[in-house]
Amino acid sequence: MQQALTLYSYWRSSAAYRVRIGLNLKGLDYAIVPVHLVRDGGQQHAPAYAALNPQELVPTLCDGERVLTQSLAILEYLEETRPQPALLPAAAGDRARVRALAQLVACDIHPLNNLRVLQFFDQEWHVPQSERDDWILHWMRMGFSALETALAGTAQTGRFCHGDAPGLADCCLVPQLYNARRFRLDLDPFPTLRRIEAACLALPAFDAARPENQPDAA
Amino acid sequence: MQQALTLYSYWRSSAAYRVRIGLNLKGLDYAIVPVHLVRDGGQQHAPAYAALNPQELVPTLCDGERVLTQSLAILEYLEETRPQPALLPAAAGDRARVRALAQLVACDIHPLNNLRVLQFFDQEWHVPQSERDDWILHWMRMGFSALETALAGTAQTGRFCHGDAPGLADCCLVPQLYNARRFRLDLDPFPTLRRIEAACLALPAFDAARPENQPDAA
Repeated sequence: MQQALTLYSYWRSSAAYRVRIGLNLKGLDYAIVPVHLVRDGGQQHAPAYAALNPQELVPTLCDGERVLTQSLAILEYLEETRPQPALLPAAAGDRARVRALAQLVACDIHPLNNLRVLQFFDQEWHVPQSERDDWILHWMRMGFSALETALAGTAQTGRFCHGDAPGLADCCLVPQLYNARRFRLDLDPFPTLRRIEAACLALPAFDAARPENQPDAA
Repeated sequence: MQQALTLYSYWRSSAAYRVRIGLNLKGLDYAIVPVHLVRDGGQQHAPAYAALNPQELVPTLCDGERVLTQSLAILEYLEETRPQPALLPAAAGDRARVRALAQLVACDIHPLNNLRVLQFFDQEWHVPQSERDDWILHWMRMGFSALETALAGTAQTGRFCHGDAPGLADCCLVPQLYNARRFRLDLDPFPTLRRIEAACLALPAFDAARPENQPDAA
């Protein structure tokens, strides 16, 4: 029998959103413990949470007594412990493609636009809001351009980022597009990303994971 | 018979350094094609390279005709196609721990201090060198503090990040410590990181991957 899953989540965190999608795609039951990233000076900095996650970031997933951090490591763990339905294709070359697409978002777009980075600009460098927004849009535009090129016009891309079943790359793409809309990035240059996003959000697993459908949504 | 491996690398890129270590740990032969990240306006932006890697970043690994991007996706691919010696432990929970340590570096330290980010600060915001250095040191210090906490005082950490064999997390840690030394971060608060680094660099696989031992080293 499998143990209880508990996700420490924040409704608007795109890293937590990725894990919610993965859990939902696999049809797993889980409890959500909200961690408010702004309230109380940031509840992720509270000692009890920092003891679980020394980076003081969300998400953290507990599988019984086991404590898991880093969204992509969590999704790979779910894939290995609850293999069906799969988030990764079977062949090594295809798996590498899906992981690279996921990491393009998770390593090269999202960390640059994270709350803690924007707080640094505001508090340490006193960068005006408009320039902080320019920064955000710059990295999203650059990352999405590469993603659009990587996805458009290759037969490996299907209804979703890889073939006709949703997977790890889609778990990363959809939350990043949510962020992009939040910051009003013009998405016209990225028709493949928008097409895949629409296909994803039509699925209950993605819909239930949306920020606005979370218990802690503002 | 396995196909020829070609690594597009830059001596000082820590993402390329990770992949060099992984290839060496697995005892694989590979050719290096240097991509100079500054010369010629950045050779990673040349059309021929951009066709291989639409992000215009190093590394790229070619396995015969197959083109692989993103350092962690490449290392996972090598693990799946050339399993021995393993870079990941066998049990899902241990694999998740190693991947989370690797991603702490690859998602939450390195992308913030990448060349393109520093170029943005210099060229777009005209941030003085001393403040750019503060930025670099800030994120390294924060990431290393979390890593030190995660590694110190747990029985899972051994001679290396996980047990007594080098693996995926060590492939990420050692290049990040190289960067830290380059920017003169005080490493005294991170004794576990320094101990593991020393154990790694005593191995020929790590030594041969060092920036200064590359054909394109300045």
